[in-house]
Amino acid sequence: MANSVQGPKGTRDFYPQEMAFQQYIFDAWHAACRKWGFEQYEGPMFEHLEVYTQKSGGEIEKQLYAFEDKAGRKIALRPELTPTLARMVAAGGTNLKRPVRWYSISRLFRYEKMQKGRLREFIQLNMDILGMDGAAADAELIAASIDMMKTFGFTHEDFKVRISSRMLLEELFLQIGVDRDQLKPLYALLDKKNKIGNEAFTGELSGIITDSEICVKITDLFNCKTIAEIEKTGGNTDLNSLNQLKKLFSLLGDYGFSDYAVFDIGIVRGLAYYTGTVFELFDVKGDLRAIAGGGRYDNLVKLYGGPQTPAVGFAAGDVVLAELLKSKKITPPYPPRSDVFIISIDEGAYESTIRTARILRENNISCEFSLKENQNIGKQLKLANDARSRFALFIGGDEAKQGKMRLKNLVDGKEELVEADEIASALILVHGINLHCTARSCT
Amino acid sequence: MANSVQGPKGTRDFYPQEMAFQQYIFDAWHAACRKWGFEQYEGPMFEHLEVYTQKSGGEIEKQLYAFEDKAGRKIALRPELTPTLARMVAAGGTNLKRPVRWYSISRLFRYEKMQKGRLREFIQLNMDILGMDGAAADAELIAASIDMMKTFGFTHEDFKVRISSRMLLEELFLQIGVDRDQLKPLYALLDKKNKIGNEAFTGELSGIITDSEICVKITDLFNCKTIAEIEKTGGNTDLNSLNQLKKLFSLLGDYGFSDYAVFDIGIVRGLAYYTGTVFELFDVKGDLRAIAGGGRYDNLVKLYGGPQTPAVGFAAGDVVLAELLKSKKITPPYPPRSDVFIISIDEGAYESTIRTARILRENNISCEFSLKENQNIGKQLKLANDARSRFALFIGGDEAKQGKMRLKNLVDGKEELVEADEIASALILVHGINLHCTARSCT
Repeated sequence: MANSVQGPKGTRDFYPQEMAFQQYIFDAWHAACRKWGFEQYEGPMFEHLEVYTQKSGGEIEKQLYAFEDKAGRKIALRPELTPTLARMVAAGGTNLKRPVRWYSISRLFRYEKMQKGRLREFIQLNMDILGMDGAAADAELIAASIDMMKTFGFTHEDFKVRISSRMLLEELFLQIGVDRDQLKPLYALLDKKNKIGNEAFTGELSGIITDSEICVKITDLFNCKTIAEIEKTGGNTDLNSLNQLKKLFSLLGDYGFSDYAVFDIGIVRGLAYYTGTVFELFDVKGDLRAIAGGGRYDNLVKLYGGPQTPAVGFAAGDVVLAELLKSKKITPPYPPRSDVFIISIDEGAYESTIRTARILRENNISCEFSLKENQNIGKQLKLANDARSRFALFIGGDEAKQGKMRLKNLVDGKEELVEADEIASALILVHGINLHCTARSCT
Repeated sequence: MANSVQGPKGTRDFYPQEMAFQQYIFDAWHAACRKWGFEQYEGPMFEHLEVYTQKSGGEIEKQLYAFEDKAGRKIALRPELTPTLARMVAAGGTNLKRPVRWYSISRLFRYEKMQKGRLREFIQLNMDILGMDGAAADAELIAASIDMMKTFGFTHEDFKVRISSRMLLEELFLQIGVDRDQLKPLYALLDKKNKIGNEAFTGELSGIITDSEICVKITDLFNCKTIAEIEKTGGNTDLNSLNQLKKLFSLLGDYGFSDYAVFDIGIVRGLAYYTGTVFELFDVKGDLRAIAGGGRYDNLVKLYGGPQTPAVGFAAGDVVLAELLKSKKITPPYPPRSDVFIISIDEGAYESTIRTARILRENNISCEFSLKENQNIGKQLKLANDARSRFALFIGGDEAKQGKMRLKNLVDGKEELVEADEIASALILVHGINLHCTARSCT
């Protein structure tokens, strides 16, 4: 029995204060997406297993919450949203107007080893532009990811976007003699280069590519810190991918985000489906996992039976972002549960308490009151404080005989008398109370 | 391959227009909850299986998406939120201040036969008050459920709340000679009375209770249309449950909701855990399944190892509500994807397009532009219409030489010239454009 008080490993319970913090993140995400002209979509919390294995191979199943439903269908809780997005765009076919500019704030599930910044159930913002190829769409999307972070108050002193290109890697690798069928394992190895250390990297590299001269060239390439250094490594540098990448950085300058964008050949991204630009957002201190990551995936919609559709997108998780916010001491206040707590002075006046609440609520004023009749005033005030209410409204007593109510500001302690039949307008007009201030989107 | 374009049976894909409709429902729910002084919580999307079997018995497993995770833990996707709520309140113990006034808007999953108004993945609003017993808390919660419906524009001509009491049933049944251990199967039978027809009901009833005289009394009781008729059936009517129920109806009158509240002895609720007041919201036409349902469950928090905690709550599903909204032709407009679509007149002016977007976005104005350089004006205008943008902002051309931009209202077709360096303030001050108008909470 006792263990059932805890939720499953890797999941979270969001009590109201924690939920307010989550909601603060979600609201900023929504606002950033709307500002950039993206609209929201959602999909099922689980998909047919093949939606994932088809895209990523059978290996992916190890990371999935996968099971059979009662009709024997193989099902998996979604580990990422991009397959659902690609499936939906494929199903929409040519009826969906291009470009598709969509975002989603969605729960995802991965059966993974628990680590700092990594849970088994988490929430991601996904932003994608489908139906457009070229550096302009890549720049717009990367710029949106930067601006999303700026919404929280982060600057280029807090985070950078590290950018590379799968296409560039492919062109460079083929040029130095790597075989096309060595590319996939090479990407997988390069993606974990920084995690496994130089020695293990060199060992695994020689397992993929036997020609040691090529291995040296790969290592040299991966020591390049800038595009200019790559151009100096010799070989043909009039590559389409390189020109596209230069254009991307130039466009990010036009967006005003040069201080945020860094070339990093080490950004490879683990997923097999990327076809062009790849990027990751990291905190400058480098203490945390990637804040966000994404890239161009031009073949995925077609893989799900849709028309050939160029696409670029990114995902940002809530867990790392929350850690970064907390480390920067950016935390929203815990908002009031109600704006007004009605306190009855008279005994046996429960009916008039309800009637007062009714008037306030009919005017969209958030309020509550003790659900215990004839409670003493001290206890009612304690309830008001527990609810973090902004005002206590005392009804009854001598004031009532004069047609008035006593309004106490619980933040600064100031009190005033208000005409009973003008209480709603006094709260709205004089004190600026209205539903918009307690509505989720404004807290 | 082709079948993977569809999501799993009983789930939904929410394309942006459908998502806007969902969001309209969620926003109204959030607003209603805040107005009544409830705060939001959330839990994991799945729980240990025993969280459900413990409460409802092994039978429940038939309706669950249940599976084992890779460590052999028995897990189930949540079919309702109340067990998670009770688990969280139990875990919070006495640290959580009473009353707990919580709401949640959450996805739920039931492996059930598909029917009108019933899907396998759906979304529910849950509102609960914990830590308070008595008719006052019941009335506050039922009143909140009524007001939630009023938020959408529904009136007492559209829906009613049908109210009964498990406690009343228990007191009446024991009085006419039903054994205590017959109560549970009797509730389960009564809950499906209207679905199975009179004949099947009588048959199953005699299976539970052999004394035909008692069966007649039960049938007589269930023919009572009002509390007054119950009082006339003979027997002691000075019952605590009856007095509480009368008080509840009286309080609902104080809330101004007498026109909505109806006594209905036939409301039993299937779930075993209800201990007092039970209620369901139905459309007046009776075409649909219940819009919402709930009641008092005073023993559930204790069942999960917490302190004895009286509780009352309800859940309302999105599927039936959406059907009712559509049948009443209450549908929100499909909001613009962006407020302003920037159209470049000059060739090779992509940089200035980005710069204009940057100014608007820095002023929290939602905007976008074609991601294809040097596109002709007609095509750019088509994109603006596809995005349902409210304004087209033409930049470049002769106007640019005079330091101006042409702003076209795409709703009424009116055009005007605006000083280029005042474009943001013109949009905000003259045209009332700002992020709040496209933010999710205001659409």
